[in-house]
Amino acid sequence: MIPTLTWTEKGVEFLDQTRLPLEETYVLATTYQEVADVITTMVVRGAPAIGVSAAMGVALGVKQSPATTVADLTPEFEQICRVLAATRPTAVNLFWAIARMREVYQKLSAKPGISIPEIREILIAEANKMYEEDIASCREMGKNGAELLPRSGGVLTHCNAGALATCGYGTALGVIRAAVEAGAEIQVYADETRPFLQGARLTAWELLHDNIPTTVICDNMAASMMRRGKIQAVVVGADRIAANGDVANKIGTYGVAVLAKEHGIPFYVAAPWSTIDMETPTGDTIPIEERPAVEVTHHGGKQLTPEGAGIENPAFDVTTAQYVTAIITERGVLRAPYPESLAELAATPAGA
Amino acid sequence: MIPTLTWTEKGVEFLDQTRLPLEETYVLATTYQEVADVITTMVVRGAPAIGVSAAMGVALGVKQSPATTVADLTPEFEQICRVLAATRPTAVNLFWAIARMREVYQKLSAKPGISIPEIREILIAEANKMYEEDIASCREMGKNGAELLPRSGGVLTHCNAGALATCGYGTALGVIRAAVEAGAEIQVYADETRPFLQGARLTAWELLHDNIPTTVICDNMAASMMRRGKIQAVVVGADRIAANGDVANKIGTYGVAVLAKEHGIPFYVAAPWSTIDMETPTGDTIPIEERPAVEVTHHGGKQLTPEGAGIENPAFDVTTAQYVTAIITERGVLRAPYPESLAELAATPAGA
Repeated sequence: MIPTLTWTEKGVEFLDQTRLPLEETYVLATTYQEVADVITTMVVRGAPAIGVSAAMGVALGVKQSPATTVADLTPEFEQICRVLAATRPTAVNLFWAIARMREVYQKLSAKPGISIPEIREILIAEANKMYEEDIASCREMGKNGAELLPRSGGVLTHCNAGALATCGYGTALGVIRAAVEAGAEIQVYADETRPFLQGARLTAWELLHDNIPTTVICDNMAASMMRRGKIQAVVVGADRIAANGDVANKIGTYGVAVLAKEHGIPFYVAAPWSTIDMETPTGDTIPIEERPAVEVTHHGGKQLTPEGAGIENPAFDVTTAQYVTAIITERGVLRAPYPESLAELAATPAGA
Repeated sequence: MIPTLTWTEKGVEFLDQTRLPLEETYVLATTYQEVADVITTMVVRGAPAIGVSAAMGVALGVKQSPATTVADLTPEFEQICRVLAATRPTAVNLFWAIARMREVYQKLSAKPGISIPEIREILIAEANKMYEEDIASCREMGKNGAELLPRSGGVLTHCNAGALATCGYGTALGVIRAAVEAGAEIQVYADETRPFLQGARLTAWELLHDNIPTTVICDNMAASMMRRGKIQAVVVGADRIAANGDVANKIGTYGVAVLAKEHGIPFYVAAPWSTIDMETPTGDTIPIEERPAVEVTHHGGKQLTPEGAGIENPAFDVTTAQYVTAIITERGVLRAPYPESLAELAATPAGA
């Protein structure tokens, strides 16, 4: 079990993903502001992990609040939510998690006579419940998606949608893990995923940890691997899925999807239901985070580009639904037309 | 004028491209074996530059030979050619340049009474003639290709097919330079081109040197830039073009070509006639160099990937002719069907 993030008595402990794979070190965030910093600086990343981190950040902020009345706590609660919501714009799980914590808080704070310690306890329990649910939903995704992968062959993934991007097991890598557990012989091809190298550093590290054979390729090699017949399926995660099935995910995903279609290779997206944003009609309205240029211009303190060069560093792109073979969720596998299949599942109560 | 490589009395001087853009240093190769090393280690790279480097290597080897008779010189000449031909397998210009030097040598050595000093002098002159021809052909390519680029807009290029890949001016970047000289307002997007980062390090450096605005992007951002309407044309170089129009070029080129087609963006290949290999029927028979894994696993001495990860590092890929809008050569612009247009131009004497 990879300890991506853990609620502790002293705060939230994070495996520092900026230092993997060479160093396995931990960061303890002891305030909600520190949780926000950990999200912004990508010590923790991956849409589902960001969501649960934010929920724990809310719980931590409330736990540490000096407020003694609901009237005092409420504005502080909103301030905590604002700071955490401002960390990263694209992954909808962040806003989903904060909204869920707020909904719980609002119900509690409306109860006459509720004590602050009671509110604290229930919010901490809710954040930890979301942690457990996240792992359970990854396992369900795995079960639902495993049979889509080849019994034997190469599976390409981009970025890290693994245990490190969730509370454990992973979304896209959860599907791969479940297929391997069911006996599939899979050779994973991990795009290194510039500029942050989540594929080279994180995906390779966690899959090798589980003895799943993994080959790292530069992002620009994916097309060649497809043409040479080495890739039988692609599976990636998502940061936000619009109501029409458009998928925002790590920069480079869209290119992989186009290449997969051109080579007749199925392209799967694995994500929990909390990544689906029925309020966002299409991918065009998903905000795309621009990260600092230094992530592209420097590596390990060394400058790669000449002075004066312009730099683009969008952290995400949008894969339009036409390139998506299926969306794998814990509630089932969805197929095109996505506006209909998503709306139908959205209208069905969870667990039904 | 960027001094990519220069014949000097002491040997062949190379601008060390492994140290750009931060350091502008030079390496003097004083023996043909050192020229071979410089090619293998990519101090000099780019198909046309490799070709002329090899020709100068042959001239240098013959210049330094202790042989006093043609009978002694001939086996040595063949040894020099073998060492230089073994440096890199994909760029056909290498073999073309060596074959041209051999042809000159064979004619000379068949002449009764020719002296070794005369042979030396003529071979040195031939290598320097190839150097001058290379620059002239880049200028012609530029003229032929400039009008294909937009009068105003974004042009994407991959790797470095510039002054640094030739003896000066460049192939793909020569076309861009010629368009800019003719008044076009072009914003260049340079794929950084992992793992060797020729785009980030070399293309950006030489275009900024000429005040051509250049934005560096990670390879995996090209698709997103296309979708966002920032790219109006793609122009790249080539390491070998088969008789059917298939193009071997830097790894990642094929993916860019597929993406360009999907977005309705023209994809141009600029290369001197010496890059066209009518002896190779299709791209499938072009040998693709596999480079050391360390280029992918490490950067600036820092390890990026965990121990145990498999690595692929093909240095080139093949773009099938169906994705190529036009091939720009110093002898004219070729269009599909390439088997016919290439065969026709091959049958036409140069200069006709």
